[in-house]
Amino acid sequence: MIILEGGLEQVNGFTYSALECGIRYTGRLDYCLIASELLCNAAGAFTTNMVSAAPVKLCRARVGGPVRGILINATNANACTGDQGFRTAEILTSDIARRLGVSPEAVLMASTGIIGRQLPLDKMMQAHPDLVAGLSRDGGRLIPRAIMTTDTIPKETCVSFQAAGREYRIAGTAKGSGMIAPNMATLLCFIVTDAPLRREDLAALFGKTIGTTLNAITIDGDMSTNDTALILSPRSDTPLAKKEDLAAFEEALRVVLTRLSEMLIDDGEGTTKRVRITVKNAKSDHDASRIARAVSQSLLVKTAFFGNDPNWGRIAAAAGYSGAEINERTLSVLFDDMPLLVNGAPVEFDREALVGIMKKNIFEVVVDIGLGTCGHSILTTDISFDYVRINAEYST
Amino acid sequence: MIILEGGLEQVNGFTYSALECGIRYTGRLDYCLIASELLCNAAGAFTTNMVSAAPVKLCRARVGGPVRGILINATNANACTGDQGFRTAEILTSDIARRLGVSPEAVLMASTGIIGRQLPLDKMMQAHPDLVAGLSRDGGRLIPRAIMTTDTIPKETCVSFQAAGREYRIAGTAKGSGMIAPNMATLLCFIVTDAPLRREDLAALFGKTIGTTLNAITIDGDMSTNDTALILSPRSDTPLAKKEDLAAFEEALRVVLTRLSEMLIDDGEGTTKRVRITVKNAKSDHDASRIARAVSQSLLVKTAFFGNDPNWGRIAAAAGYSGAEINERTLSVLFDDMPLLVNGAPVEFDREALVGIMKKNIFEVVVDIGLGTCGHSILTTDISFDYVRINAEYST
Repeated sequence: MIILEGGLEQVNGFTYSALECGIRYTGRLDYCLIASELLCNAAGAFTTNMVSAAPVKLCRARVGGPVRGILINATNANACTGDQGFRTAEILTSDIARRLGVSPEAVLMASTGIIGRQLPLDKMMQAHPDLVAGLSRDGGRLIPRAIMTTDTIPKETCVSFQAAGREYRIAGTAKGSGMIAPNMATLLCFIVTDAPLRREDLAALFGKTIGTTLNAITIDGDMSTNDTALILSPRSDTPLAKKEDLAAFEEALRVVLTRLSEMLIDDGEGTTKRVRITVKNAKSDHDASRIARAVSQSLLVKTAFFGNDPNWGRIAAAAGYSGAEINERTLSVLFDDMPLLVNGAPVEFDREALVGIMKKNIFEVVVDIGLGTCGHSILTTDISFDYVRINAEYST
Repeated sequence: MIILEGGLEQVNGFTYSALECGIRYTGRLDYCLIASELLCNAAGAFTTNMVSAAPVKLCRARVGGPVRGILINATNANACTGDQGFRTAEILTSDIARRLGVSPEAVLMASTGIIGRQLPLDKMMQAHPDLVAGLSRDGGRLIPRAIMTTDTIPKETCVSFQAAGREYRIAGTAKGSGMIAPNMATLLCFIVTDAPLRREDLAALFGKTIGTTLNAITIDGDMSTNDTALILSPRSDTPLAKKEDLAAFEEALRVVLTRLSEMLIDDGEGTTKRVRITVKNAKSDHDASRIARAVSQSLLVKTAFFGNDPNWGRIAAAAGYSGAEINERTLSVLFDDMPLLVNGAPVEFDREALVGIMKKNIFEVVVDIGLGTCGHSILTTDISFDYVRINAEYST
C-alpha cells in the first residue's frame, strides 16, 4: 500500500465540479457535484441525531440503490426546515439526475452550514447547467475546498493498493468539526474508489472501519444533524470477493479514514493538542466506549489538556460518571507510559516529565479499568480560548 | 415564610468553628466544624460518581444514624486516595467525636479540593483542640467562607416559617462549581434547622426538593467525586408530623435550596448568564430530564449564550441527540415567549428583540416536544473565555 499525493482526482472513473453559487456568501465555492462514470454501489454512515437534516433523510432512503452522483452544498445545513426542506433536496437532486441522464434516485445529497434556513432553490437550480457542464476529473481538486465551512485546511488523501493482481485506489475528502457560528458543525466525508465491491461487502467494511476512525474522534461532543460519510464503488460483474482482496481493501480504507480523522482533529476549532484516550480492560465493549467518550468529552479534562495541567483526578472522575462499571480499587491512569493512579491510589511521579509529555501536543492517556478485557480508543482535543471565541460569534 | 438576613447563625441549637489549618495553602480558612447541641436526624444526597471521595463513603455509612456534627475541609478532596484516605477520614472524625463526647459514628465529613492527594493528617489533628474550643453560634458566619474553593462570593441564606403554632428556621450554606485548577469542582451544601422531623420525613422531603434545585443546575456537566448535601434536624419526641406542618417545612426548604442554587449558578466560573432550560410535553419524565440535560450541557449552546447568538438550531440538535424520543414535526423552541421553531419548521422572528432577550442575562429557553405531558427544568450558564482560563491553569 502506498500513500499518493493528491486526492479524489487520483481515482479512475469519477468526475467533479464546484462553483460559487452564492448560497449564503459570495466569493466562495459552496456548491459541488461528484459524478461517477459507472453505476456505483454506495454505503453511508449518518448522524444518529433524532433531528436530522433533509439530505440525510434523502441519503438514507437512496443509499441502498445504484448511485451515480453526490450533490453537496456548504453554508446551509437544510436542517429543521420541515417538509419544504425535504422537497427542495428532492427537486435539486432530480434536476441533476435529469441532466446526468440517470434515474432521480441515483443522486445523493449532503449539506452543511447553518440550521433552520431554507436553501435558495432558484439560485441553486440556475447553477445546475454550469455545475454539470463543468464536470472533469481534475475538478476533484476543488471538492475539499468547496465543502469547507470553518475548516482552515482542505482535507484529502489517496492510497494505492494491490488486489486480484492489479492496482486499485481509494481517495477521500472530509470537512470537519468547525462549529464556528454562523455554521453548525457537520462532519462530511466522501470516499471514492475504483475497486469494485459487492454492496454488502462495501457496507460491512465501511461500517467497521468508520467505528475506529470517524466515529472515534470528538472535538466538543455535540452531535450534528448533518453528519454524513459516503463511499462509492463501481458495480462490476467481477467484484473483489476473495478474503485477501477484501482485507487489502479494508487496510487501505482504514488508512484513508485514519488520515482524514487525524486531519479533522488537528484542524478542530481552536485546538492545540491531539490526545488519544485509550481505555483498557473494561468489562464490556460498551463500557469501554462509554468511558472513552466521557473522558474525551469532559470539559474539565479538555481545559486541563489546554493548560498542560496533569490533573489526572478529572480523568478518574469522568470515568466514574460514565455510567460504566468501575471499581476504584482496580482503576489506573497513565499518561503515555507514566503511571499516575495505580489501583485507585495515587503514585509519586516526575511532574516535570509529565508536563513534558503534555507539551508534546500529541500524547496518549491510558485508563486501565482492571475489570475485564475490552478496550476502546478515541482521539480528542483540548478546548482553548479560540474555541469559545469562534463559537460565541453572532449567527447574524 | 420570611427570608432573614444572615445564615447558619440564625438557627437555634447549632455551633460552629473555622480556622486556618494550612491544609494546602496558608492564610485562608480551610477547616471547619458544625456541631449540634442535640442528637440530630440527618439526610444526605451524594455524588452518583462510581469514583467517590473517602468522606462521601463515610457519610453514606453514617447518615442514617444519630448525628452530632459535620467536619469539613477545603483545598483537598480526599478522593482517589485509596484505603489510606478512608482511614484518615475515620481518624479525624473519631478524634472530633471524642472531643465532643459523642459516639464516633455521630460525626460526618465532607471534603473539597484537589483529587489524588492524601490529607495532612498530623497537621489536621493538631488543629482539633482549637477547632472544638472555638465552637460558637456566631461562628456560623465563618462557614460559608471556610468551605469555598474557587467561589468568589460566600453563599448563605436563612428562612423563617410557621408550623405547629410556632416559628422555626432553616438555614444553609453551599460552595459551588468553581472548577478552577488546582481544585476539582465539588458542590457542598449544608443545611441546619431547628424544626424536628422524623428521619424518614426529613429524607423524603430533602430528596424531593433537591431534585428540582441542587440536582437541576449545571455549569459544565462534569460530575464530581465529592458532591455532598447534608441536612440536620434535631431529634424530638414530638416531631412535626402533620401534613400542613410538613408542607410548610418543605416550602421553606425549597426556598433555601432554590436561593442557594441560584447563587451557585450566578457564581459559576466565568459565567455571565443564568438560563433556565424548560422542557415541556415530553413523553416521559425521563425523556424530559434527558433533553433538559443535553441542551443545558451542550458546549455549542452554551458558547452561543455567551455570544448572545440566537443559534436555536444548536438547541434542536442537542434535543435530537439526547437519547429521548423526539419527533421533528412536533418540536418547537422558544426564547422566553418568542417562538423560533414551531413544529419542526423555522418561523420568522424579530432578530433584534431576540438578541435583546439574550442580553438580559437571565432568560428562559423552552423546548416543547409535543409528544406527551412531562416536563423538566434545569438552570444552566454560558461558557466564557474565563471558564477556559480558570480551568486551564496549572494544578502545580
